[in-house]
Amino acid sequence: MKRSIEDTPIVFVGAGNLATNLAKALYHKGFRILQIYSRSKESAQLLAEQVEAEYTTDLQEIVRDARLYIVSLKDAAFVELLPQITAGKQGALLVHTAGSIPLDIWKGQTERYGVFYPMQTFSKQRSVDFSEIPFFIEANSVQDTEFLKAIAATLSDKVYEVTSEQRKNLHLAAVFACNFTNHMYALAAGILEKSGLPFDVMLPLIDETARKVHELTPYDAQTGPAIRYDENVINNHLAMLESSPELQEIYKLLSKSIHEHH
Amino acid sequence: MKRSIEDTPIVFVGAGNLATNLAKALYHKGFRILQIYSRSKESAQLLAEQVEAEYTTDLQEIVRDARLYIVSLKDAAFVELLPQITAGKQGALLVHTAGSIPLDIWKGQTERYGVFYPMQTFSKQRSVDFSEIPFFIEANSVQDTEFLKAIAATLSDKVYEVTSEQRKNLHLAAVFACNFTNHMYALAAGILEKSGLPFDVMLPLIDETARKVHELTPYDAQTGPAIRYDENVINNHLAMLESSPELQEIYKLLSKSIHEHH
Repeated sequence: MKRSIEDTPIVFVGAGNLATNLAKALYHKGFRILQIYSRSKESAQLLAEQVEAEYTTDLQEIVRDARLYIVSLKDAAFVELLPQITAGKQGALLVHTAGSIPLDIWKGQTERYGVFYPMQTFSKQRSVDFSEIPFFIEANSVQDTEFLKAIAATLSDKVYEVTSEQRKNLHLAAVFACNFTNHMYALAAGILEKSGLPFDVMLPLIDETARKVHELTPYDAQTGPAIRYDENVINNHLAMLESSPELQEIYKLLSKSIHEHH
Repeated sequence: MKRSIEDTPIVFVGAGNLATNLAKALYHKGFRILQIYSRSKESAQLLAEQVEAEYTTDLQEIVRDARLYIVSLKDAAFVELLPQITAGKQGALLVHTAGSIPLDIWKGQTERYGVFYPMQTFSKQRSVDFSEIPFFIEANSVQDTEFLKAIAATLSDKVYEVTSEQRKNLHLAAVFACNFTNHMYALAAGILEKSGLPFDVMLPLIDETARKVHELTPYDAQTGPAIRYDENVINNHLAMLESSPELQEIYKLLSKSIHEHH
């Protein structure tokens, strides 16, 4: 009988936002998730129930007969626990999901290793459509690179092979395009709240700002007072932010940066 | 014969991004655009052709028989040209489209005046769907407030009456949610370009970041290393930005700000 790629038994080491979304997506594609490890019993159990897996909070109890271990821990925890994670997993493929950690972190610790990085912003409260998430793949052998690409391809059409150096830059760019962008939304929400205005009025503008860069470069899409450093408007805004030195500093720095780019 | 609101003869003073998009949208709804004024002949003529209007580059030649004058100039130019714009327009309604300029700017200059502020990021190269743009309306009489709301309602379902103070805060919030957000995209594009990666790979992340705040508050939607100030990742990123002190400063300031909010 021919085995399909979905028969690959998988263990998740970690049950955070990324692991939760990825495990559920693979489970719904028919993959067998054997076990979930998390230091937090609540997280491990919650995810395990959703993907019909066992769970454990003890690294020593991670099963050793999986073919693929997907390690999705905070960077610092991952580095610290690496020897325990790799112990007794000879023969299996071990991958991590972090944008910023190089492939070589695994070197000398285990035989077959790789990186399986879906670039997206994951929250447990929200399911995302994996079909449009780019996956960035790297492994220490051609066979495992192809194997990981095949797994990613069951979820998404956008599967790329990149170097650790490129992935590090992708992750840095993502911090700007996603984490810092979301913080701009948060700062806007704070300004509106102070004036008794609902955040919802901002959504059409937020959507158009995102849609626009599908068609124009961010450079061409830029609008607003900072491009030509319109002092009237900018000084007015800085005066409005007088009671929030932090926002004032952010406003100044970003306006200066926009102006210098244009 | 009953006259419909679309018979209102309109003159546009200004032919920039906002005026261009608004004039075209009103024209397509059946409004009669009489004339376009712009200091730049090219801009005036280009927009006039698209909305079957006359054009002029001379403020003195603006026709005096329109019922509505929509003034959409840069803030500084508007304030400077105000006496010439209002001259000879007694009886007509004059409005400006700026988020940051109070209603009272018109006071003593003309009889009937208002503000007609569609909050969106407009570029000439891109047509936007007005049906989902919020309009913020203000006027110095109830009748004209209702009249402007009726005009806005031909384009959008989202028509609000706000005070000048609220509008000023909307505009400031929009600078964060749109202009600064777009600059985050631009900085991400620069980082990717240096690594030989196309900006397009960032679009699913940008889209999801925008979609997410339809469902979660920006506070709950926040992800990334700054929330818990993950020093491993942050110091790594700062080291990568060593050659761009400006980006380094932005990265530091925004990470600190995210961390303090969480």
